[in-house]
Amino acid sequence: VNQVLDTGAIRGSFAQRYFKERSLLGPLVMGIDPSRDILLQWGLEDSPGGLADFCKICLESAAGNVALVKFQSAFFERQGYRGLQVLSDSLKLARENGLLVILDGKRGDIGNTSLAYAETYFSQTSDFFSDATTVSPYLGLADLGPVFEMAHNAGGYVFVVARSSNPGARSIQAKMLDKNLSVEASVLAEIRRINESYLSDKTDNLFLQDHPGGTVHTADPVAVVGPVGAVVAPNCQEEISVQLASLRCLFLAPGIGAQGATMAQTADLFSGCIDNVLPSMSRSILASGPDIRAMVQKIAEIKSDMEQYF
Amino acid sequence: VNQVLDTGAIRGSFAQRYFKERSLLGPLVMGIDPSRDILLQWGLEDSPGGLADFCKICLESAAGNVALVKFQSAFFERQGYRGLQVLSDSLKLARENGLLVILDGKRGDIGNTSLAYAETYFSQTSDFFSDATTVSPYLGLADLGPVFEMAHNAGGYVFVVARSSNPGARSIQAKMLDKNLSVEASVLAEIRRINESYLSDKTDNLFLQDHPGGTVHTADPVAVVGPVGAVVAPNCQEEISVQLASLRCLFLAPGIGAQGATMAQTADLFSGCIDNVLPSMSRSILASGPDIRAMVQKIAEIKSDMEQYF
Repeated sequence: VNQVLDTGAIRGSFAQRYFKERSLLGPLVMGIDPSRDILLQWGLEDSPGGLADFCKICLESAAGNVALVKFQSAFFERQGYRGLQVLSDSLKLARENGLLVILDGKRGDIGNTSLAYAETYFSQTSDFFSDATTVSPYLGLADLGPVFEMAHNAGGYVFVVARSSNPGARSIQAKMLDKNLSVEASVLAEIRRINESYLSDKTDNLFLQDHPGGTVHTADPVAVVGPVGAVVAPNCQEEISVQLASLRCLFLAPGIGAQGATMAQTADLFSGCIDNVLPSMSRSILASGPDIRAMVQKIAEIKSDMEQYF
Repeated sequence: VNQVLDTGAIRGSFAQRYFKERSLLGPLVMGIDPSRDILLQWGLEDSPGGLADFCKICLESAAGNVALVKFQSAFFERQGYRGLQVLSDSLKLARENGLLVILDGKRGDIGNTSLAYAETYFSQTSDFFSDATTVSPYLGLADLGPVFEMAHNAGGYVFVVARSSNPGARSIQAKMLDKNLSVEASVLAEIRRINESYLSDKTDNLFLQDHPGGTVHTADPVAVVGPVGAVVAPNCQEEISVQLASLRCLFLAPGIGAQGATMAQTADLFSGCIDNVLPSMSRSILASGPDIRAMVQKIAEIKSDMEQYF
């Protein structure tokens, strides 16, 4: 744990690194989703070798053009441990290229199993050491405590899936617990509570010198963020009864572009905390590959479309 | 997909294989949870080599004594891709020893990402090919369709986490949607609906010749099971408003022994469908290791305790 605390001291908090990079390159997260279909579409083999080539092309397109890349773990797992070796190598290559990396695994488990996942993503010596990861809340946020704590100490970040981008998730996430609180809103309210407890205990660690808004005071509910973020997809138009700006966190926002939400809808949903939103796009960019110039061009177009909203 | 269908044809359904093994060895599932603590307690290195030794000892204790083993994925992931190579080797070794294997990963994602997880666990050529896996329902059961379908076609099985064994999960799973339906009961009701649709469409594939009750007719709501199972932990004493026997599935039951539920409580919760319950125990057995004779002795004691209830 001491080693991990050292890492945090060296690299600062995820939010600090993110706001610094965002001020230079904008908020866009490029999703690296090497499905079988896209590998074949790019003329690559559906094999660990094809996977490695795919990641190299993606990272060459991303470096210097976006602040973050997001790897979808499932597409590496389906290629077995050799696929996961490619993931490990690609995570390292991304960081060497100055990119922040989110490893999208949506893990969630209990007790010491959660601790094992925390080590998977936030131990400095792990093959899968990342800047941030995603987790699923179904086994309760209390048991994700070790993940939040280790991420916080290691300068990492955890996005809890609250509202996902798939319509099929409405059957659980949108269910109403009472008149005003849906399951997803209940998860968001619990994230707010955890962040509040961190922010009151540990304010020193959370000051964001590099926030685009300049000098920041703890009284600002948006710019000072706690260690627990949320995945909130803007492509679903139902109201959320919890005010998102009150969560004091960063948001990962999938479901823009190919999955349906416009930039304007995204800006509208996150009104009051748009600086804290990481919009993630994958298929819209990957469809322009494998030509790196075409992908870089597509990234530039998306960033240009974003400018007026973010 | 044809290759996978062939697998199913060769090995039959998971339920068929399970009931056959259960009639010989009983229902006990031995959990293989190589946490850092237990590795050190056994005098093994916290390394891929230590992990491999741990698994070999577990499998030698299990073979011929239990029908199933359950590997917890997180403890292999924290050791990186080399840890996952050990997992792959251990899954193969377990099957070579005649054991049925459950890979406990609690994955859950959307669309083509779910398909990638389905391939991870149920493609015959995958390093992580298993008899069964666990999934998380938070992103909706609709998007897990590819996992259920591929498992069904490959003679595999999927346990959806409905009620987990950790008290912290009560904050989401026990939340009431209306007067009688909790979040977990809503998940269970959806599992029932999916199994009913499979059983009405595809009854031929689901006849269980090897059920301990002998010849089985589709009119029997318990013995003929659909492809979607449930994780239901018996250590929490809250009522479940859905009648478990009506789900027409197999149940994976953690949280017995070290985590608190007694055999009698377990038998009580699953009254009317106890033949369909796979009780999983890990720490109670592993605490007797690394001595194989002591572990085998402990397994025998647990099986003896179970006999009057299962």
